[in-house]
Amino acid sequence: MQLGMIGLGRMGGNIVRRLLRDGHTAVVFDQNPEAVAALVEAGALGADSLEDFVQKLALPRAAWVMLPAGPVTESTVKALSGLMQADDTIIDGGNSFYGDDVRRAGELKGQGIHYVDVGTSGGVWGLERGYCMMIGGDKAAVDRLDPVFATLAPGIGDIPRTPGREGRDPRAEQGYIHAGPSGAGHFVKMIHNGIEYGLMQAYAEGFDILKHADSENLPPERRFDLDLGDVAEVWRRGSVVSSWLLDLTASALAGNEELDGFSGYVEDSGEGRWTINAAIEEAVPATVLSSALYRRFRSREHASYSDKLLSAMRKGFGGHQEPKA
Amino acid sequence: MQLGMIGLGRMGGNIVRRLLRDGHTAVVFDQNPEAVAALVEAGALGADSLEDFVQKLALPRAAWVMLPAGPVTESTVKALSGLMQADDTIIDGGNSFYGDDVRRAGELKGQGIHYVDVGTSGGVWGLERGYCMMIGGDKAAVDRLDPVFATLAPGIGDIPRTPGREGRDPRAEQGYIHAGPSGAGHFVKMIHNGIEYGLMQAYAEGFDILKHADSENLPPERRFDLDLGDVAEVWRRGSVVSSWLLDLTASALAGNEELDGFSGYVEDSGEGRWTINAAIEEAVPATVLSSALYRRFRSREHASYSDKLLSAMRKGFGGHQEPKA
Amino acid sequence: MQLGMIGLGRMGGNIVRRLLRDGHTAVVFDQNPEAVAALVEAGALGADSLEDFVQKLALPRAAWVMLPAGPVTESTVKALSGLMQADDTIIDGGNSFYGDDVRRAGELKGQGIHYVDVGTSGGVWGLERGYCMMIGGDKAAVDRLDPVFATLAPGIGDIPRTPGREGRDPRAEQGYIHAGPSGAGHFVKMIHNGIEYGLMQAYAEGFDILKHADSENLPPERRFDLDLGDVAEVWRRGSVVSSWLLDLTASALAGNEELDGFSGYVEDSGEGRWTINAAIEEAVPATVLSSALYRRFRSREHASYSDKLLSAMRKGFGGHQEPKA
Amino acid sequence: MQLGMIGLGRMGGNIVRRLLRDGHTAVVFDQNPEAVAALVEAGALGADSLEDFVQKLALPRAAWVMLPAGPVTESTVKALSGLMQADDTIIDGGNSFYGDDVRRAGELKGQGIHYVDVGTSGGVWGLERGYCMMIGGDKAAVDRLDPVFATLAPGIGDIPRTPGREGRDPRAEQGYIHAGPSGAGHFVKMIHNGIEYGLMQAYAEGFDILKHADSENLPPERRFDLDLGDVAEVWRRGSVVSSWLLDLTASALAGNEELDGFSGYVEDSGEGRWTINAAIEEAVPATVLSSALYRRFRSREHASYSDKLLSAMRKGFGGHQEPKA
Repeated sequence: MQLGMIGLGRMGGNIVRRLLRDGHTAVVFDQNPEAVAALVEAGALGADSLEDFVQKLALPRAAWVMLPAGPVTESTVKALSGLMQADDTIIDGGNSFYGDDVRRAGELKGQGIHYVDVGTSGGVWGLERGYCMMIGGDKAAVDRLDPVFATLAPGIGDIPRTPGREGRDPRAEQGYIHAGPSGAGHFVKMIHNGIEYGLMQAYAEGFDILKHADSENLPPERRFDLDLGDVAEVWRRGSVVSSWLLDLTASALAGNEELDGFSGYVEDSGEGRWTINAAIEEAVPATVLSSALYRRFRSREHASYSDKLLSAMRKGFGGHQEPKA
Repeated sequence: MQLGMIGLGRMGGNIVRRLLRDGHTAVVFDQNPEAVAALVEAGALGADSLEDFVQKLALPRAAWVMLPAGPVTESTVKALSGLMQADDTIIDGGNSFYGDDVRRAGELKGQGIHYVDVGTSGGVWGLERGYCMMIGGDKAAVDRLDPVFATLAPGIGDIPRTPGREGRDPRAEQGYIHAGPSGAGHFVKMIHNGIEYGLMQAYAEGFDILKHADSENLPPERRFDLDLGDVAEVWRRGSVVSSWLLDLTASALAGNEELDGFSGYVEDSGEGRWTINAAIEEAVPATVLSSALYRRFRSREHASYSDKLLSAMRKGFGGHQEPKA
Repeated sequence: MQLGMIGLGRMGGNIVRRLLRDGHTAVVFDQNPEAVAALVEAGALGADSLEDFVQKLALPRAAWVMLPAGPVTESTVKALSGLMQADDTIIDGGNSFYGDDVRRAGELKGQGIHYVDVGTSGGVWGLERGYCMMIGGDKAAVDRLDPVFATLAPGIGDIPRTPGREGRDPRAEQGYIHAGPSGAGHFVKMIHNGIEYGLMQAYAEGFDILKHADSENLPPERRFDLDLGDVAEVWRRGSVVSSWLLDLTASALAGNEELDGFSGYVEDSGEGRWTINAAIEEAVPATVLSSALYRRFRSREHASYSDKLLSAMRKGFGGHQEPKA
Repeated sequence: MQLGMIGLGRMGGNIVRRLLRDGHTAVVFDQNPEAVAALVEAGALGADSLEDFVQKLALPRAAWVMLPAGPVTESTVKALSGLMQADDTIIDGGNSFYGDDVRRAGELKGQGIHYVDVGTSGGVWGLERGYCMMIGGDKAAVDRLDPVFATLAPGIGDIPRTPGREGRDPRAEQGYIHAGPSGAGHFVKMIHNGIEYGLMQAYAEGFDILKHADSENLPPERRFDLDLGDVAEVWRRGSVVSSWLLDLTASALAGNEELDGFSGYVEDSGEGRWTINAAIEEAVPATVLSSALYRRFRSREHASYSDKLLSAMRKGFGGHQEPKA
């Protein structure tokens, strides 16, 4: 089927490529004409403005917006909706806050425009491995887009099937789900990222302890100089902690156990934060997920004010003088 | 080669079976004669006492102890060492504290007996999938046992090879490593379990938030009734959080999304605790791993004293009267 | 000076009483006529409707709203503002979210009505000890109300003066501050409560460890049966952890070391949650404050879904069967 | 009565001074002859060796060791015990691990020497304010030293008495308790310090959020430029979070709100770590106390290995390139 794509960065561009390879057609638009040209070469139909883009789409239109979450996505959805008509569908495949989806879907309902939110995991590997997709929206709109999702998803592959799933929605094992009404897709994707932070931090702490197993704080007979690349590798086979993140860890450590070139400064994106906000709203204790987020905040601080205040108190009650950092 | 096995529970018994299947021979002993009989039927040579067991082993002996960590293992190692001689090897394959390995290896050194500690991951799946092994001990002793480890390990299987490992120790991708001197094997296994706790808790919190996404605390337009079995399944394909623990989660939720039959009481074993002790000794901030451990402690409490004290303070300063639980 | 008070619960009623005792006058209103009657007896002028209340206030009016944060406060402020005129002042002394203050102040600005937010700490003890107040709003409006704040505040009392404060705003040591523009008062009060949660949890955990110092998990020679009431009492004198919360703890434990009558169910109010949201918005790692909040969430759960999922995974990889809770 | 003091640093020296002021006598020894001379001038009897020290003490002897916990205290106690006789008492007033007390008391029992452990809080303020003491040991030995403890303790002072303590051990409100057998004193002191870490961290986080309330991450209308010195000061009067640590915070911020001169590097001492070990041994979830400890560990790291590993994973799955720190 035909899909329109706005935003031809790494994610948007590769999604179009994966669709074209499987026989779908695509109309594409981006602020950057070179990005459009590259996909035209790959077989897509290029547009040079939003108006042109909408015009070139067959009715009922399906326009996928793949832009940075926030103001850019917001204004694009608004502009698109002004050009589209009843029964068209706008798909937000970015990392939007699910509350924004709920609001937008409500606003577009009056015009009869469908709004579908797609949480997409897969990153730079999606073109080859396929994209894991969590989808929110009206059943009719989601069902109509099924050929697109079926192509983009990884498929069953050689991953063993889960026993006990007989008779359940077969899309899940293909790698996509219709999670619920508008917002549900990005909600599930948000939690996915929250979990991701927790998993990453668990590995990071474990390897940190392994790394410091030769610390001079330890009695000499209990110091170990471990090969962390081999540890990561061995856990990939038969251990309880095997995972894709561990595979990536093993790759990173294979050639660079000291992790040279990384500064220790770690960014976070909205989903990790929103996950905590959601947990608090639901009164669910999200201890590990919060800790993981906070460690990233902390990684970006130098000479934290909170730590200075601890030293000031220590000086106050005990006359302690901290060493210079 | 020949291996002696003391302790024929699920782990010890299956290790022997996997060895026998691959052409090795085994002498086996257990307090329970039926356990011995079952393995004799599978092809092992049975012993009816520790003395008999030692006598039946060819020189230099290799005796694997697969018993509960703590006093039982301690006294068995002691008794065994009294019956063995220089150049024999005692292998502790249980979940011993690595500090105990260091001590025991030192004690046995005087007698010329080798001591090898093997941290073993794989649980009930090991017979089929193989065991992931982290090994500590003298190079000579570990090398001599290599045929045993090679058989027990999972092997490369169909897991993609890690790029950049060319020229590195090939045992790691077979599923076993010689981590370092005595104690290093159990140290690495200990951290493995510490990470395991953190990973599990990350998933548990994420699914807890998904589960409560239909909470009445939320505004109606932002409530979702999600199919958690499908969420777990979809993440298995192409997502960043795919892992073996997620596979198990998907299996558990496929047929029993409410997790009926589980009380919410969660045990912990020594490794999770020792991991935190090790982190503290090294001054490594193990925030997520500690939180995961504490959540298990908390799962086993009713009407926690600490919580009662919070209520007592709240009554003191604000006259707040908590509802009955 | 004259103050109007809407909401004559424990807080509102006692604030009026403290004002009357010091020679101020008050117009009072409450949905409950008995609450009005009680304060009329104490010397206030009663009103039987919001209209009557506004009418009885001298120009420029000062109306203090002391109602539950949320819809009730919102609608009352809205109704009041419809009856008031330029240069009047509305004071929100409840536990409103500071973002609501910012919004309301902006809305009222068009009408020329001042909006002052007062975060008030002191609880049931305020009538005797005075109220610690954190105030947000325009300088003119806050200054005009100074006689009210001066009466309500605790005053210097016998608390030693902080060295180095010479030349600084003397109101702080009287027990009230003008923290900044509208919203700043409730913002500071919000953080106050966030800290309060952290402090309480620190004591709660410490006493929990003391309480379990006779645990059978410990080696007999390291078990202690401690008198927690005496411990709390001794720390009140000369120790680093002395505080008002410790005073309350000592009182609670003096007569009831087992804390009988408390169920272990602990409520939380908005401020603790908003504190975490604010920390996340600022990217400040609020590890302890979050943990304290989560422990309260957890105190209200039975057979947590997250814990059940841990058990399900443990069963999956290790065949572990958890005991019934 | 007469007390011997070994170790005349800030703590030991001031303890002797407070005793001399109240009419007691003291024999003193220190490796540093100048420290001895200073106290001789203050009225103590000086010793120039451990032998001399023991000789100058009247029978039954009472020798207080006030030295750094660990090897120095250990060897001094050992040397002392070799010179003393049955019914003499050794007091360890330092910050020893309570398990060491249990062991030492057992070892000395054979010789009939009493061993009393005294956890002492009060720091640089003790000479003036008195010392809060938590004491472990045999009843007879502790009772015999009562005149010393009574002098060192702060006394009731002007701190209000706790209602409901009628008929309970009056020593607690004087500022000292006999907590239990040997080890109990340092155990209680250890938890005191654990709580101290938690309280400090709660304040530190709260002030950190206040400090960043003017962050550019926030919408302009919700930014506040707060006077943190005034906030600390106002909370000292009538608020729920008033405490001695808050008094110290107010002092620190009064003249130096930016906390210039503090590097952000925060040390920790043994007690905070032992508290966590004890909690784990008891299976008590010490979430806040652990977080507080870990924040100190983290304050001392630059470019943490764990954070680098997070970046390596992020690069692996998403191609993310972290900025330089």
